[in-house]
Amino acid sequence: MPHIDLPDAPGILAGMLFRPETAAPLNALAEVLLRGDNTLTRGERETIAAYVSRLNCCEFCHNSHATFAALQMEGGWDVIDQVMADKSTAPISDKLRALLDVAALVQESGRAVTPEAVEAARGAGATDIEIHDTVLIAAAFCMFNRYVDGLGTVAPPTRADYEPMGRMIVEMGYEASVPAPPAG
Amino acid sequence: MPHIDLPDAPGILAGMLFRPETAAPLNALAEVLLRGDNTLTRGERETIAAYVSRLNCCEFCHNSHATFAALQMEGGWDVIDQVMADKSTAPISDKLRALLDVAALVQESGRAVTPEAVEAARGAGATDIEIHDTVLIAAAFCMFNRYVDGLGTVAPPTRADYEPMGRMIVEMGYEASVPAPPAG
Repeated sequence: MPHIDLPDAPGILAGMLFRPETAAPLNALAEVLLRGDNTLTRGERETIAAYVSRLNCCEFCHNSHATFAALQMEGGWDVIDQVMADKSTAPISDKLRALLDVAALVQESGRAVTPEAVEAARGAGATDIEIHDTVLIAAAFCMFNRYVDGLGTVAPPTRADYEPMGRMIVEMGYEASVPAPPAG
Repeated sequence: MPHIDLPDAPGILAGMLFRPETAAPLNALAEVLLRGDNTLTRGERETIAAYVSRLNCCEFCHNSHATFAALQMEGGWDVIDQVMADKSTAPISDKLRALLDVAALVQESGRAVTPEAVEAARGAGATDIEIHDTVLIAAAFCMFNRYVDGLGTVAPPTRADYEPMGRMIVEMGYEASVPAPPAG
């Protein structure tokens, strides 16, 4: 049950419909981080987002971004389920595994990130931009997750509930999902 | 010492100069949240930002936003120092005090926010938009703080170091602080 009087919409959409002025930069950030030009695939970046959301116990963001990851990752739900169960044995690249380790440290605290964790990612082939973007994706989901749950928004209960939104995001991107802020 | 090869600039500026594509939405978010039209003053919003940054032990963000708050809050540093020492006795409005309580819960986890804390803010006069913006400011600084420290950026050591940046932000805003992303 939302803590304030929000429009009747699930998760972050309720906050975005309530406050389009802040929705615009939030969606622009999600678009560049998760879908912009990058040597990390969209599926890999959504996997990082889903993983951090799981560590933060944010049901809406985890289910959303796990769906977006499954739709864009080779192997689909089978791979995503394995990453969430145990990333150390999941069938993903060593680079993504090492970046997920960095993301987990960021989720704990920015100060928890160690030179060793960053070196391990670099050793597995991660570039500086990939490391930067992993840190910022993980940090951004520490924001999105707190925003969604801090407002007490509602999370649809089943995976299937997230599928239509997932197909829309995959096709049209994050900036198509909410109305533009009022002009002026 | 930064974990990746960043431009020689303090704190978040290093990350923003390294990756102008993500700097643009980050600055747009800071601008609307901390300086856009609002019934919370700019000084009050910067106080929330500085307070959350302190809870996250992010030296650069705490010092920056405490400076921006002191420059824009009636009472200046004297009030800001009292808020950081003990917000329960600081000479601020009961509304801001209750919103800082909400912000502290968001810093812990979105799921830590209680209906009682939100009701207390409402009872002290906070509107739904003020509560929404407090949740999002607190959530956003859980991102900014992790971004700044997760990259291992450098924090200038003294208050005076933050004053020129503070005067620029107060005068020109957040979107003037870094170069625009490359066109196209």
